[in-house]
Amino acid sequence: MTATEEVLTDLAEFVAIPSDSRHASPETMRAAAEWLAGRLAFVGGRVEETRGNPVVRADWTGAPGKPIVLVYGHYDVQPTGDLAEWTTPPYELTRTVVRGEDVVRGRGATDDKGPVLQVVHLVRRLLAERGTLPVNLRFLLEGEEEIGSPHLGDYVRAHATDLACDLVVSADGAMWRPSEPSISIASKGLVSLDVVVTGSATDLHSGRYGGTVANPVHALARVIASFHDADGRVAVPSFYDGAPDPTPERRAELEAIEFDEEAYRAGLGVPALAGEAGFDTLTRLWERPTLEVNGVTGGGKYSVIPHTATAHVTCRLVGEQDPGAVVAAVIAHVHAHAPAGVAVQVVDDGVRVPAYRIPPDHPAVVAGRAALADVHPGEDVLLAVIAGTLPCTALFEEVLGVKTLFFSFATADEQHHAPDEFFRVARIGAGIAAWTGLLDRLGEGS
Amino acid sequence: MTATEEVLTDLAEFVAIPSDSRHASPETMRAAAEWLAGRLAFVGGRVEETRGNPVVRADWTGAPGKPIVLVYGHYDVQPTGDLAEWTTPPYELTRTVVRGEDVVRGRGATDDKGPVLQVVHLVRRLLAERGTLPVNLRFLLEGEEEIGSPHLGDYVRAHATDLACDLVVSADGAMWRPSEPSISIASKGLVSLDVVVTGSATDLHSGRYGGTVANPVHALARVIASFHDADGRVAVPSFYDGAPDPTPERRAELEAIEFDEEAYRAGLGVPALAGEAGFDTLTRLWERPTLEVNGVTGGGKYSVIPHTATAHVTCRLVGEQDPGAVVAAVIAHVHAHAPAGVAVQVVDDGVRVPAYRIPPDHPAVVAGRAALADVHPGEDVLLAVIAGTLPCTALFEEVLGVKTLFFSFATADEQHHAPDEFFRVARIGAGIAAWTGLLDRLGEGS
Repeated sequence: MTATEEVLTDLAEFVAIPSDSRHASPETMRAAAEWLAGRLAFVGGRVEETRGNPVVRADWTGAPGKPIVLVYGHYDVQPTGDLAEWTTPPYELTRTVVRGEDVVRGRGATDDKGPVLQVVHLVRRLLAERGTLPVNLRFLLEGEEEIGSPHLGDYVRAHATDLACDLVVSADGAMWRPSEPSISIASKGLVSLDVVVTGSATDLHSGRYGGTVANPVHALARVIASFHDADGRVAVPSFYDGAPDPTPERRAELEAIEFDEEAYRAGLGVPALAGEAGFDTLTRLWERPTLEVNGVTGGGKYSVIPHTATAHVTCRLVGEQDPGAVVAAVIAHVHAHAPAGVAVQVVDDGVRVPAYRIPPDHPAVVAGRAALADVHPGEDVLLAVIAGTLPCTALFEEVLGVKTLFFSFATADEQHHAPDEFFRVARIGAGIAAWTGLLDRLGEGS
Repeated sequence: MTATEEVLTDLAEFVAIPSDSRHASPETMRAAAEWLAGRLAFVGGRVEETRGNPVVRADWTGAPGKPIVLVYGHYDVQPTGDLAEWTTPPYELTRTVVRGEDVVRGRGATDDKGPVLQVVHLVRRLLAERGTLPVNLRFLLEGEEEIGSPHLGDYVRAHATDLACDLVVSADGAMWRPSEPSISIASKGLVSLDVVVTGSATDLHSGRYGGTVANPVHALARVIASFHDADGRVAVPSFYDGAPDPTPERRAELEAIEFDEEAYRAGLGVPALAGEAGFDTLTRLWERPTLEVNGVTGGGKYSVIPHTATAHVTCRLVGEQDPGAVVAAVIAHVHAHAPAGVAVQVVDDGVRVPAYRIPPDHPAVVAGRAALADVHPGEDVLLAVIAGTLPCTALFEEVLGVKTLFFSFATADEQHHAPDEFFRVARIGAGIAAWTGLLDRLGEGS
């Protein structure tokens, strides 16, 4: 079997374990962890307890004096959502063709079971072929990434000595787009809160009481409308503190990237792109913080004045924005815009993820770019930004004192978290070759 | 048995039939209709077909030369909602005490099975005692009032000749409050529509796409916030056309009514009353049109930019406001305030109910007041307004050319449409006496 065939055979088994961390039983999650630990038996693969789903750990430390690289990934998956929206059963890996490309479809194929197995196989083959590895390796594969890694922090803090390393390389994450190889050198921070507006004790008949009490939906709409000015800028005072405008150099870099705004617009199906005035789409996406209402709910279809209305709000942060300060600024803004006649409360979810950045000249980035360039001769390796949030980066930086290199061979268009998730078969061989080149370069200290 | 005991015995049987027109089977609805027709057998009670739930009809025309009065009511009830919120099973009539008063509790007890049975019993007793009635009577008791009477219009138009009458007296409706007898001489009109904002083809990850597309929830919030100005006035141009400010005389009448704003506020549990500047609460409630968002929905708790967001909107109309013109004005306003980057659509529910009014000096109102005054000696009979909407009034006026007198002995505080619906036992005897006085007066032509 080729390496790709080996990965696909294992991936079919791995995908068949429905390790949906939002809904699966502890037994199912443990079965997935045990299965993965078994695949890592050649480097001491084992299941270790956390206060939630267990983590899978493994270590190979047969190269004294060489750097220690911690490989991060996860074995849990997103819920399938509505099964009717899947072309084939989500937990049966199916080889098929998407947009003319050879792919495998299934929940977790690209996020993150395929990319994890790719590394597992590569390390096994390398060790079998060479009898050694270019660097020392630790694996830390968690089972709660898709639910916000609620217990990973405690685990890492409790095992900081065992996890000591020089670098984290993440098999999670994704290349920006299929047209060229890329490395993400930044991700945005995150805070999250609910705005809850309450009026009367119960829903009121909109005829019998209409016009005499403030309507919580109207009040909430005023608060939401106050979040942005007419130019699409976030209107919360001091929101942008720590988020500097991109330098002329960064603007020039961004302008040099070929980015088809019209294709992007058409792909999303929106009538027009929109956002903060004064920036193009790529700059908005990669360099600017955002405030988005993710959901709103209140009342229903019938003739009531709802007694309550709620909005869920997240902010994505960049640069040196302080998550706690942003939460405080949003809370103050909400209270300043709360209309009379209702009670307005902000429920802080406690999420505090700062933005993350690895310098473009960091040795790991340099090594990763070189490895990718070898595998994709003649193509530029883009330095991209993950506009999403990867909380583990902050955790590893804080507890282990190391940076994280994102080196995933998933691609961002592969229906992550959506029906018909897929993984490009061609990325398996490419990824194995690039990981080999990366580990070799890290071992050489280049 | 006293008349009250007879009504309560029958009411227990009637309430036990779960004629919830939103959820019950056609068989259950028919069973309720057949049961009621049986109770009207002494005046030819029968079930007649409509394209939906049947109506119950009956006629007594033994008083040639006397007016014909059509008694309107309904045998369907609202859904129970969450059974856990009921103190006793909703379909078991339970005698109990509420706020120190002797009541019966059960779904439909006050809306509208109790008030309907009250009239049925009164007419039977009167006929038994006197051998005749002071007026000719027709009964029209429908089974779809709680779902907006979708088939009543067709039925009334098709049977206009059989239903010809001089006046409708409705056993549906409710007295304004328990502290004194009242007759409602007006009800508000209604239009209803949905505002649907659509952005991208699917929900988008709020990180990966944040800041590059318009968020439909933000757009909808701007539209909702634009509906009212800072003074609580509806800001839709020409909305108030046909809704004159109350005259000085009407203001004086309203001011003469004892109305405790603080008790009203405390009863609703709101931090403060609110509404259109320049009017007190009772004027806002009875004389002013309103626009309320009854519900809003979009996205959810997770980190998405929702692809769509929807608001359900109803307007309550007064005076000569034209329902069609109000709908057109709201649609134009929404489109004028639709932000760029999203598609905004208004779905018109087709509801077109004008406001209704019966003159205070109409003979039926005069007769009703006098009948109530006899039963409640020494108490003022208030002329009130139903701030809700009673579409059948417009139907009877248009097709039969007659006014409707609301003469119900339900009270608006009896948990209509809510858990623990109840009906005051004392109102049964009072209602029977008052209905007798009303029919006698109508027969005398007074």
